Amino acid sequence: MDCVFCEIIAGKRDCFKIYEDENAIAFLDINPVVEGHTLVMPKRHVEKLEDLSDEEAVFVFRAIKRVVELLLKKLQADGYNVVVNVGRIAGQEIFHLHFHIFPRKKGSSRSGSLEEVYRKIMGMKFKS
Amino acid sequence: MDCVFCEIIAGKRDCFKIYEDENAIAFLDINPVVEGHTLVMPKRHVEKLEDLSDEEAVFVFRAIKRVVELLLKKLQADGYNVVVNVGRIAGQEIFHLHFHIFPRKKGSSRSGSLEEVYRKIMGMKFKS
Repeated sequence: MDCVFCEIIAGKRDCFKIYEDENAIAFLDINPVVEGHTLVMPKRHVEKLEDLSDEEAVFVFRAIKRVVELLLKKLQADGYNVVVNVGRIAGQEIFHLHFHIFPRKKGSSRSGSLEEVYRKIMGMKFKS
Repeated sequence: MDCVFCEIIAGKRDCFKIYEDENAIAFLDINPVVEGHTLVMPKRHVEKLEDLSDEEAVFVFRAIKRVVELLLKKLQADGYNVVVNVGRIAGQEIFHLHFHIFPRKKGSSRSGSLEEVYRKIMGMKFKS
């Protein structure tokens, strides 16, 4: 298995998981650009948006909504960006389709360890 | 009606329309960041992703897929970014939810008039 996200989904690697259902998963980016930088993705390994079925898209959409609501509430964010990069030229680095969620608030920074951010969002300590 | 996108959807303003169905619409951004910069949105005026129903999300998702396929093919793009900004702090300027599609290819620029880009994508001249 070459895909780091598939390894996470299969439980072979740790992650700071924020959300999971049968078809979608969300966890903190290990190189956050802002506090609470989260990745949402389908569990099935697809590379591009075009490869996603309507059914999977609904699961991913709901996962994004849940994550956004969680981040807005728990991190007191005032807004957010959702970004998808498809293709190397567009900045895609891991070729398992994923949606970046960047919660935005005044003075937001990447300070705070992932453990601290996880605790803020999930209200509990991270256990691997 | 205060929303420029609602005015476009109602046919009260011109746009370079790329795609339309009963619930979603896509047209060229009038201030393109790259050639083929397109906006995809639900027809219903909602501000945030959280306001979109699952049904509307499917329509918007399909519209994004159609637009992406069109841009990749007609503009010979090699990849793309999809970006959603929600909230003023996140860069949202028009408070009708919209998805930016940025087709990406080597040496892509914003050169070329919207009329020329429209003709490339749609294979016909623009008529208002």
